[in-house]
Amino acid sequence: MRFKFPLMAIGLEVVMIVLFALFVQYETSVNTSRNPNETESAAMDVEKTMESYPFFQDVHIMVFAGFGFLMTFLWKYGFSGVGINLLIAALGLQWGTIIQGIFRSHGQKFLIEMKNMIHADFSTVTVLISFGAVLGKTSPVQMLIMTILEITVYAANEYLVFKILWASDTGESMTIHAFGAYFGLAVAGILYRSGLKEKHPNEESVYHSDLFVNDFLWTKQYRAIVNTYFSLAASVVTAYACSSLLESRGKLNMVHIQNATLAGGVAVGTCADMEIPPYYAMIIGSIAGAVSVFGFKFLTPLFTTKLRIHDTCGVHNLHGLPGVIGGLAGIITVALEESDSTKTVSQAAALGSSIATALVGGLITGAILKIPFWAQPPDEDCYDDSVYWEVPERKEYDNHFHELLSTLH
Amino acid sequence: MRFKFPLMAIGLEVVMIVLFALFVQYETSVNTSRNPNETESAAMDVEKTMESYPFFQDVHIMVFAGFGFLMTFLWKYGFSGVGINLLIAALGLQWGTIIQGIFRSHGQKFLIEMKNMIHADFSTVTVLISFGAVLGKTSPVQMLIMTILEITVYAANEYLVFKILWASDTGESMTIHAFGAYFGLAVAGILYRSGLKEKHPNEESVYHSDLFVNDFLWTKQYRAIVNTYFSLAASVVTAYACSSLLESRGKLNMVHIQNATLAGGVAVGTCADMEIPPYYAMIIGSIAGAVSVFGFKFLTPLFTTKLRIHDTCGVHNLHGLPGVIGGLAGIITVALEESDSTKTVSQAAALGSSIATALVGGLITGAILKIPFWAQPPDEDCYDDSVYWEVPERKEYDNHFHELLSTLH
Amino acid sequence: MRFKFPLMAIGLEVVMIVLFALFVQYETSVNTSRNPNETESAAMDVEKTMESYPFFQDVHIMVFAGFGFLMTFLWKYGFSGVGINLLIAALGLQWGTIIQGIFRSHGQKFLIEMKNMIHADFSTVTVLISFGAVLGKTSPVQMLIMTILEITVYAANEYLVFKILWASDTGESMTIHAFGAYFGLAVAGILYRSGLKEKHPNEESVYHSDLFVNDFLWTKQYRAIVNTYFSLAASVVTAYACSSLLESRGKLNMVHIQNATLAGGVAVGTCADMEIPPYYAMIIGSIAGAVSVFGFKFLTPLFTTKLRIHDTCGVHNLHGLPGVIGGLAGIITVALEESDSTKTVSQAAALGSSIATALVGGLITGAILKIPFWAQPPDEDCYDDSVYWEVPERKEYDNHFHELLSTLH
Repeated sequence: MRFKFPLMAIGLEVVMIVLFALFVQYETSVNTSRNPNETESAAMDVEKTMESYPFFQDVHIMVFAGFGFLMTFLWKYGFSGVGINLLIAALGLQWGTIIQGIFRSHGQKFLIEMKNMIHADFSTVTVLISFGAVLGKTSPVQMLIMTILEITVYAANEYLVFKILWASDTGESMTIHAFGAYFGLAVAGILYRSGLKEKHPNEESVYHSDLFVNDFLWTKQYRAIVNTYFSLAASVVTAYACSSLLESRGKLNMVHIQNATLAGGVAVGTCADMEIPPYYAMIIGSIAGAVSVFGFKFLTPLFTTKLRIHDTCGVHNLHGLPGVIGGLAGIITVALEESDSTKTVSQAAALGSSIATALVGGLITGAILKIPFWAQPPDEDCYDDSVYWEVPERKEYDNHFHELLSTLH
Repeated sequence: MRFKFPLMAIGLEVVMIVLFALFVQYETSVNTSRNPNETESAAMDVEKTMESYPFFQDVHIMVFAGFGFLMTFLWKYGFSGVGINLLIAALGLQWGTIIQGIFRSHGQKFLIEMKNMIHADFSTVTVLISFGAVLGKTSPVQMLIMTILEITVYAANEYLVFKILWASDTGESMTIHAFGAYFGLAVAGILYRSGLKEKHPNEESVYHSDLFVNDFLWTKQYRAIVNTYFSLAASVVTAYACSSLLESRGKLNMVHIQNATLAGGVAVGTCADMEIPPYYAMIIGSIAGAVSVFGFKFLTPLFTTKLRIHDTCGVHNLHGLPGVIGGLAGIITVALEESDSTKTVSQAAALGSSIATALVGGLITGAILKIPFWAQPPDEDCYDDSVYWEVPERKEYDNHFHELLSTLH
Repeated sequence: MRFKFPLMAIGLEVVMIVLFALFVQYETSVNTSRNPNETESAAMDVEKTMESYPFFQDVHIMVFAGFGFLMTFLWKYGFSGVGINLLIAALGLQWGTIIQGIFRSHGQKFLIEMKNMIHADFSTVTVLISFGAVLGKTSPVQMLIMTILEITVYAANEYLVFKILWASDTGESMTIHAFGAYFGLAVAGILYRSGLKEKHPNEESVYHSDLFVNDFLWTKQYRAIVNTYFSLAASVVTAYACSSLLESRGKLNMVHIQNATLAGGVAVGTCADMEIPPYYAMIIGSIAGAVSVFGFKFLTPLFTTKLRIHDTCGVHNLHGLPGVIGGLAGIITVALEESDSTKTVSQAAALGSSIATALVGGLITGAILKIPFWAQPPDEDCYDDSVYWEVPERKEYDNHFHELLSTLH
């Protein structure tokens, strides 16, 4: 990747700056150029904007904390995992701001409000989820391309679900989690390497629920908080029980725990702010926790051998299945609560659209990424940091090793 | 623990769901079933609820951050430390919500407000503190039982202190920190294993002040923030000085620093929102920092040899002693400020009750946990993750080791 | 450091308590001793104070998170890095509260409001930045002295820039970042050890942008948030591109990434709340990201060999250069926007003053720290934790090593 990567990165950044100069209207210019009424409403928007500031803050704290957390699992592929996450986030939030703004303004200039930045962050999360499915098997250049393509498809599906179908998906179980997972699985299916059929010696589960971005954080409503809180708690307890049930001699598996415990938060997303009693949320969480553990144990190996889809981090279990459970729970809740059956149809259409656009978009993106020009790593370099990173600490670690050994002999 | 653990965990989760269905009233049902005045006050409650949202958020950020932080110290018993913490928290907050709600409503159905969830989190913290005293010597099954029993006793003492004695303990120095420490010590005393008299080879201080949950975070009042801020700062500087004074050749001990620095936050808790000048808070912090370091150096070894209480992580020094200092500081402050001596008596009674219920409850819980049915680990498996966890990363680490060695020979 | 360190630490803490007792007025005493109008305005202050609470909270969350993050890079000098950071912060915020309060009140008693605590935290950050330049080459005693001296000089320059020149520096690019970096470089220049000319075997880049304290966190204004957000994003993408361009075979260097990505936040600080369009902020961020990477690659080695200034962590690249870029961007923005040229002169004077006081203060402090009484480590002990800390975990780690080896032979 001698020049491909730096040139593409700089090129994309220049494009972003130009697009911002062309499309983004700065708050002040509005205030002076329009009539007083609009100025006033703009001022109110700014005030409303400041109200959402703590939640914006939370997002970034989570990104930082998650970043730090991931850092602790540096092993062979730790640098790439963390580093590419950061790169995806930085590029993705710029592109997400632009593409979502253009969708919203129908191609006109638009203002940036706090909530647009939050939505841009959301769009980035889908790419981070998909990244989990192809981790270790793709080059940074490929990830730049995937970031641009996936966020574009995401923005289209989001517009369809919320602005045309008017479906409900507060915690974005379907539009973010299921979408991201199935997009990633489709890409992974296209990029399947039969040379990696056997478990690669470098491959180890070091994925940690990219960034803890769960719905819990995104919502301020009393009902959504209570439901998410108890769904998560129930999913933790159930995941422990199932993990112990499935592993040899009743042991626990940290990979199950770490992922399955968040599944409750993903699954309750769609109906988080619907009028459901807390125990219903706990049942959703328990199902999601159990399904997630079973997925890790039985489904992921099956995907690799039968479907030729190699899901590096098992994103299907943390985001895909719980997202679908969330979508189904949303359909059931709406069907029970609303007499108007068109709302139920909307919910079902939203779930269908999220999965369908993810699969189609993922297949096309996978086909583009397969073009042998993007500095793809050969099979033997997969899951290895040293292909893309200077790795001083590892060397130092090994030096200490040899030092210790030399004291022995 | 082939079946004991998963069956008990699933059983408890089912019980929680049933209890929620029976006792928890969902906000909406109230709005519709009662008279308008009550509805209005319920709406106000919800508004008040949203005001406490940032603080609820903070708690969970700390839980996550603390979780990640602990993760970094994975060594032999890292998985169990972290994993059991999470399990305790998930079960504890469900049970805490129920038992505290029943106490408050005298057995009637009750509503869940944000502040109930914060209180349920609090109740969980006591178990996490006690867990520090028995870490490495108990099975997950035992921890499930201890969670249920300790939170029940905690809820009773909390009701006594705040609703009957009307004592002041804003930062819960007495009711959480001292209570949790002495409960844990009593359990540890009952579970004493003479086979572990000698320092176990796996035992290393990897405890890190479970979850950074200090009072600082729980309180919004100006006075409490200022006092806690400067108490913590003073306790850090004093702990450094004392650690250097006690260790060989003036060195510093990271275990002292990590624990003692938080002691200032614990100790200032009881009188955090009383009318004390900041320098008084700094004196309390300095005393707590010093006492905590001295406790680690001299008291913990003495407890093991003389009292046959083996306090794995030294919770007595971080939570027990500073909690008692906090209680005493509260009594002194009230005695100086208030002419009415009954308030001083209430404060003293609250400290006494917190320690007494902790000790009695801990002894009974310890006796129950001693019943040889809870899949207790034999002495040689203590402090070892691999008894309860699949430990892939360790294996991988060792593989890298052998790989490196093979390049040598 | 058998007695020098503990005695100095206790002595300083006693001085702080006495100064607080003498200078700090407690809120209540005001309420009772003054006239009703003032009481009312004091109450309003308290209310305003509570509004800034979330931002105060954020600071401390970052300090904790940063602390935990740094912890993960424990290697030879990890303990000292983290531990001394905490000590500096604890002492610095007490001294910062006092010295800034005295400056503000012209030597009278003063009240502590939330914003004073935030400003005291700021003052501490300058010392943490400077610490990066001398990390591994100084004793704890020297750091205590540097904390007191640097915060005093900082408070003087801050007073000059904001209260006499009335210059703008919202994100404190100049007054914190450039100041801290050049102060540290001046100290490092004076403390240059020719014995460490060759790269010390213990020296490894494990510095991680102390505490993530960037301006982003300090400001609530809509404009400042948007500008910082996009400046950071652009700086990340550009840093990746430049790192790949400069390293062998197009690889990425984690040290570049970690530091350069924050450079965008530092550089946009001065004009963060000025009326600049977002794409202008993205250009500032891109320049800062690129300059920072180039600095690491070419400037830091040159400083060591030619200027005899050994900058352990390369603070010049993360704080010095981006701070100067921020100052220059501020001058240009003001020159373009304001017809009144005295404002431009003020901005330029603020940049000059920040660098000049930093250099002069740093040279004097360096000269004081050179006095051979402060328990300085000899050259061979530099960058080694075990001089100042008990290091159990390392030992344990090595034990595991030997254990593994013994299973082989």
